[in-house]
Formats: sequence, C-alpha cells, structure tokens
Amino acid sequence: MQFKISKELLEQIEQLIQAKNDQELEVLLNDMHHADIAEIFDELSIDEATYIFKILDSEKTAEILLELEEDVREKILRGLSAKEIAEELDELDTDDAADIIAELPDSKKEEVISELEDLEHAKDIVDLLRYDEDSAGGLMGKELVKVNENWNVLTCVKEMRIQAENVTRVHSIYVVDDENRLKGRLSLKDLLTTSTKTPISEVYIPKVDSVKVNTSSVDVARIMQKYDLEAIPVVDEMGRLVGRITIDDIVDVIKDEADKDYQLAAGISQDVEADDSIIELTKARLPWLVLALCGGFISVEMLGLFGGAMEKHGELFFFTPLIAAMAGNVGVQSSAIIVQGLANQSISGSIVNRLLKEISLALLNGVILATILFVGSHFILGVEPKIGMIVTIALISVIIIASLIGTFIPLILDKFGIDPALATGPFITTSNDICGILIYFSIAKLILGF
Amino acid sequence: MQFKISKELLEQIEQLIQAKNDQELEVLLNDMHHADIAEIFDELSIDEATYIFKILDSEKTAEILLELEEDVREKILRGLSAKEIAEELDELDTDDAADIIAELPDSKKEEVISELEDLEHAKDIVDLLRYDEDSAGGLMGKELVKVNENWNVLTCVKEMRIQAENVTRVHSIYVVDDENRLKGRLSLKDLLTTSTKTPISEVYIPKVDSVKVNTSSVDVARIMQKYDLEAIPVVDEMGRLVGRITIDDIVDVIKDEADKDYQLAAGISQDVEADDSIIELTKARLPWLVLALCGGFISVEMLGLFGGAMEKHGELFFFTPLIAAMAGNVGVQSSAIIVQGLANQSISGSIVNRLLKEISLALLNGVILATILFVGSHFILGVEPKIGMIVTIALISVIIIASLIGTFIPLILDKFGIDPALATGPFITTSNDICGILIYFSIAKLILGF
Repeated sequence: MQFKISKELLEQIEQLIQAKNDQELEVLLNDMHHADIAEIFDELSIDEATYIFKILDSEKTAEILLELEEDVREKILRGLSAKEIAEELDELDTDDAADIIAELPDSKKEEVISELEDLEHAKDIVDLLRYDEDSAGGLMGKELVKVNENWNVLTCVKEMRIQAENVTRVHSIYVVDDENRLKGRLSLKDLLTTSTKTPISEVYIPKVDSVKVNTSSVDVARIMQKYDLEAIPVVDEMGRLVGRITIDDIVDVIKDEADKDYQLAAGISQDVEADDSIIELTKARLPWLVLALCGGFISVEMLGLFGGAMEKHGELFFFTPLIAAMAGNVGVQSSAIIVQGLANQSISGSIVNRLLKEISLALLNGVILATILFVGSHFILGVEPKIGMIVTIALISVIIIASLIGTFIPLILDKFGIDPALATGPFITTSNDICGILIYFSIAKLILGF
Repeated sequence: MQFKISKELLEQIEQLIQAKNDQELEVLLNDMHHADIAEIFDELSIDEATYIFKILDSEKTAEILLELEEDVREKILRGLSAKEIAEELDELDTDDAADIIAELPDSKKEEVISELEDLEHAKDIVDLLRYDEDSAGGLMGKELVKVNENWNVLTCVKEMRIQAENVTRVHSIYVVDDENRLKGRLSLKDLLTTSTKTPISEVYIPKVDSVKVNTSSVDVARIMQKYDLEAIPVVDEMGRLVGRITIDDIVDVIKDEADKDYQLAAGISQDVEADDSIIELTKARLPWLVLALCGGFISVEMLGLFGGAMEKHGELFFFTPLIAAMAGNVGVQSSAIIVQGLANQSISGSIVNRLLKEISLALLNGVILATILFVGSHFILGVEPKIGMIVTIALISVIIIASLIGTFIPLILDKFGIDPALATGPFITTSNDICGILIYFSIAKLILGF
C-alpha cells in the first residue's frame, strides 16, 4: 500500500493546474493523504504548489504544511499573507503551530500571531515559543485532558467532554490539584465504574511518569522508549502541568539523533540531504576535509623527519598507507562502539576494566592481523624478514594505541559535556593516521638505527 | 525523573537476597517499574536475578523478561522449567510471547508451547512463529478489536466489550466482512452517536491504511512514520485481517536499523555492544580489518611499482598518507549521504543529474582544498613547486574520483538488492585509498617521467 508518485499522476496534476481546472484538482487531491500530497509538492515548482495550496481548504493544507521539507515550506509560506498563514496555524495543534512560527522571519512572526483567531490557542503558541527546541518544552503540545482532584466523577466527565473537543487523540487523563500541580492520572475504566459522586481524589492513580520542561529531547526519547509510553506529561519547575509530549514527536527525535550521529561519523557536520544545494553540502563537508588536510600536512612533515631512512630502507615507505589505514579503521570501530554505548546508556563498569578489555581485544585482533601481515609480506610481497618484523611489531602496537585513542576520546568528550559523536569519523582517522605513522617509524628507527 | 541505579540500592538488594528476606524484597521491587528492575538484573549475578524472578508474581516478571538484554534473558530462562516459562508467556501479548519462544532452543519450544494454559493464546502464538522476524507478520500481535460489517451497532458494542478484555490498549476498531477481509475502521464517536439498530456497514469509514504480512519491517516503519500512525492492521495475501502492529514495536525497528547502519559505516558487522564479550566483538570487527589489510597489501605492491621514483623524487612518498586519507574521507562523506538518502527515500532525479551534481560538488571542494594544499606545501612544507603542482593536481583528481566511487557503489548495491550500508566504512576507504594512490603516482609519472 506504499504510495509512489507516478509520472502520469504528476503530468495530470500539472495539466490540471495549467488548465486552471480547480474542480477536478480538488476532487483528485481531496482523496489523497496529506503526507502523499506533501511528497507531490516536492516534485512540483513552487508556483504550482502554491496554486494547489490555495485551492484546498485549510484543514488539509495545514497538515500538508507540516509534512513538507523545511525549504519547500519556507518558499510556500513566503507566498502567503500573514492572515493566510494564521488560518493554517489555527487548524494545527499548538506544538506544530509553534514549530512553524519559529521558522518564520522575525518580522512576520508577530504579524502572524496577531492574526490568529482563537485567542486561547494563540496564547498557548506564544507560550511554547519561549522553550528551547531541543527540550521537553520545545516538543510538548498544550492539548491535553486534565481534571481537578477535588472534583467528583460527574463534574469530571462533564469537563472532560468539553476539553476533549480540542484534543485530536486522548492519550491520558491527568489529575492536578488547585495549583495545577500534577498529582496522577485517571483510568477511564475506573472512572466509568465508580459512582458519580465519588471524589476524584479517591479514584486516581497517584503514580505517573513525567518530565520537566527543560529535560533534553534526547532524554525524553530515552524515557518514553524505555517505559513504552505513548504520551508523557510535562511539568514546570514547580511541578505544574504545562503540556504533554506524544510518541510521534519522539519518533522524529530518535530518527534525527541517529541521522546526526551517522553523519558526524562520516564527517558531515550539518543536517544535510542528498537533494540539498551544492553550497549547503559544501558547508557541511568542507570543514572536516580541511581538518583532514591539516592532519595530512603533519604526516608529510613527520615522514620528512624520517626521510633519512629512504636511501637504505625505501621499502619502509611502501607500508605507510597500510599502517595508517589500519590505525584509522581500528580507531573508528572503537569509537563507534563507545559512542553508541553512551547514546544507549549501556556502558557499565569502571574505566580501568574498560581499558583492560580494550587492550585485550586489540591484542587479540592485533596478533591475528600481524600474523597475516608477517606471512603475507614474506610470501606475497617478498620483503626482507627484518622489514617484515618491523611492520608486524608496528601493526600490533598501532592497533593497541589506535583502539585506546578511539575508546577514550569519546569518553573524555562525554565527561566534559561535548557530544562524543564529534570524535568519530575524520577526527579519529586523522589523529590515528598521525600516531600510527609516528609509532611505525619510531619502531623502525629503533631496530634499524637510521 | 530518570531512574539511576545507585550502589546503595544494589547492595541493599544483594543483602536482602543473601538474607532470603523475600517479604522485604517483594515490597521494594513491587513498587518499581519493570523496566527499572530489568536494568537492575543486568547488574546482578544470574543466580541473584533468578532468585528475585521466582519471588515476584508472573504478571511482573513477564514484563521484566521483555525488557532484559537477550543474553541475560537466555540465562534466566535456562534456569526455569517449561511450565514456569509458559506461565510467563501466558501474561504477555502474542507478539512478545512469540518473540521469546523464537529465542528458545528447539527442544524446549514445543515443551513450552504445550504448557500454555490459554489455548486460543497458544494457537495465536504458534501462528505468529511462522513469519519472518523482519516482516510485518513477525512484528504483529493478534490482540485487536474487530467487528463484522453485517452486525448492527448494538451487537457490535457487546462484542467489543468481550474482545477488549484481552487487549491492553484499543488503538482502533477494525471492520471485516464475513470472510474476515478488512473493510475499514470504526470511529468510536460515530458508534456512540448512532442508533443501536443501524447496521455497521452504514457507519464505518471505508478508508484504512494496512500492510501485508510479508511487507518488510523497514517499510512498515516508513509507512507508520509517514502517516503518523499509532497502530496499523496487517492483512494476508487474501486481504484477511490477521493482526496489528503498534508504534512501540516500530520505535525499536527504527532504532535497530539506525544502529546497524551506523555500525556498518564504522566497520562493525554484527549487532554488538560495548559490554559484549571479546570474542563477540572480535567476530564483528576482525573481518573488516582483514579486508582493510588486504587493501593495504595492494597499496604496498602498487607503491613498489613506482619505487623507481624514490631515488630522485623521494618527497613524493611523504604525501601518500595525505592523498589516501583525503580519498577515504571524501568517499565516506559521499556514500553516507547516499545511504541515508536511500534509507529515507529522499533521493530524486535521474542518475545523470546526480553524477553532474557530485562532480560539481567535488570540483568546488577539490579546488578549495587544492589551493590550501598548494599554498601550504610551498610555504609551510617548503617542497619544490613541481612536486607541489603534482600533489595539487592529484588531490583534485582524487577528490572527484573518490566522490564518484562513494556515490555510485551504494547506488549500484541498492539496485541489486544488497544493503547499500555495506559499502560505507572500510570498504569505501580501502578502495579509495588504492585508487587515490594509483592516481597520484600516475600523474607524478606523467609529469616527472620516471
């Protein structure tokens, strides 16, 4: 049932736009899911997309807006008046509306907010705008159903009906005290099986998971995932209920976080996609390449220092790329396991144990690889045994050092509150290249004495 | 509110176990969330964990079982009889129960199934066992609420009450025909506002998203994410409703898929964690290192072919690690963007356009980096201009070739149905190292004529 945009469908839509056949366009598109229409928008020109946007009613277009790529959304919004944008936002949940307003240029923000029709809605949106987008406050929406612990069941049911009008999906019924402090939650079943005069304070469940407004979005994701929650209430510094976060927003957080770590490991520093502009892709990629190039300069200088060996032992230089590559690969493996372990909070035990384990692991891998190298360099490459021995000893040493660097740099960054994923990719490969070459030639110098 | 295991808590629990103080243990643990107890189990010895396991009632232990790391779960289950395991499974949803049975050794599977008390439940579990674990069938559970289109509202409400007993959370009410074929879904609101004698066929919504039993779990995740679904029904080849998948299972799929791609990019081929055994970690890491080592052999041989240049132009060899590192880094960047684009289905446009874009991008990056290199090699490294020119031309060429290799290898693998993530990491860096060195020395030979 997966939707695929066909060439025919696109052509049909483009023809209908050219013919200004609004009626048929409406029939065709009203039958489609807003997420599918958003995909079609990505393929159309901005003029065509804006044309369709103005035909459909705001209930549908508001949902389409949410699903669009950020740059497409920006361009479409640029073609709409503040009043038209406000009409879209009136249809959306507060958290989604706030996200879209946050993307608008400052000059337009106020104008759009002043055009919002529903005043309560507008107040909630403005309230949400002040939270950091990577915190629980930035993720939460205001739509929720809450009841006072001092009400009885009858009042409660009446109030719930009114509140539920504004809520697309009721995940939980939260119980608060007179000060709006979160006290617990209510089971619908208990509510329906209790006499209407019973006070809520006697039936509610006093245990409820919650997060603070300033909890980081990554931590919220971790908590909801661990406890299999579909929604979680958000409280402020005084324990007052201020919003709720639903699982669909968390799915996006998990996906974004994983994408970001993956890109950092590959040496890409901004959130870019294959379809972004060349300038944007360059901005994300060039800094890491410059870093690698600077590392390259150091390796050139270092090799220069050992240049005296070239006359007698030129073969040594044939092995530098091999040693550097092994150092880089081992380092990346070690750092990736640590970065993932930190992200999943699955790293236990003391730092000394981790050190011992990493050294044993490196020794085991190193000895196996060194054996292959020693045999291979003798029988396949035919280098003299003395050089073979040097390369072999260097490989084991380099693997041990590289895996220690790969393990400890992310751990240290994490200790200082820096994203450990920064240490993967080019950073680790470059520093390990340099260390690897230094170790290799130092061992060679020690043995051959050039 | 994030739970952290304290040393004191662990010590307290261990002392209670030693003192066989079952009563206090029960009080202490019954108050804790099953996901937290599972974390504590990871820190205890298997004997201690099994001891606790036998004290708590099966409603709680069944949930704990689900949250445990696979290896801990396996060890605990080994200490339980078939009957004891069956008691745990009777408490779980069919999909979770089937997942646990699938992990048991074959000899124990049948024994456990024969001990299940609820026959309906047992039949459902056995049915689920035949699906591939990476398909919708392998993800789905049997617990759902469905009504027949030929019933009237009254019958429907009665039936729903009975069915809902077995379902933890009702996500949707599905409508089927006499053959159990999925026809649509029912809105609770419509149901409550319609006269009790109205036939369901007049009130249900005929549009409902669904997936086939053999849809891959990655595709199911993509669909549920795109359409923001909290549950999706699963139909068989004949369109009959056979189960439903909930969003919490999909969160795990998304996380696992991202972790796997990340590990492949870092040259780790199995699903390992920092706390796994050294043997397991070696199995996941060594194959990629051997691949890199073989690539290293080729680079040694290749450098040997150009060895004649050493006498006159030894400096050339100082630059090999720099060229190899740049080739590797550029290749990994390009492949990562493609792999991610393929995973998110966000790559559009023809292959020729992609080619042109990648070349322009590489040219832009290449020219900037080459300028830095040319200036740096002259003023910082002090190499002669001719060598500087060779290195500069080589760098631009290498960056273009490396980015093309990084772009097209994943695209080709994907075309042949092979996971493109395999092409990231060591595979790309190794092949780009070799190509980079070959291009560099070929250019040098052409210009210097050695």
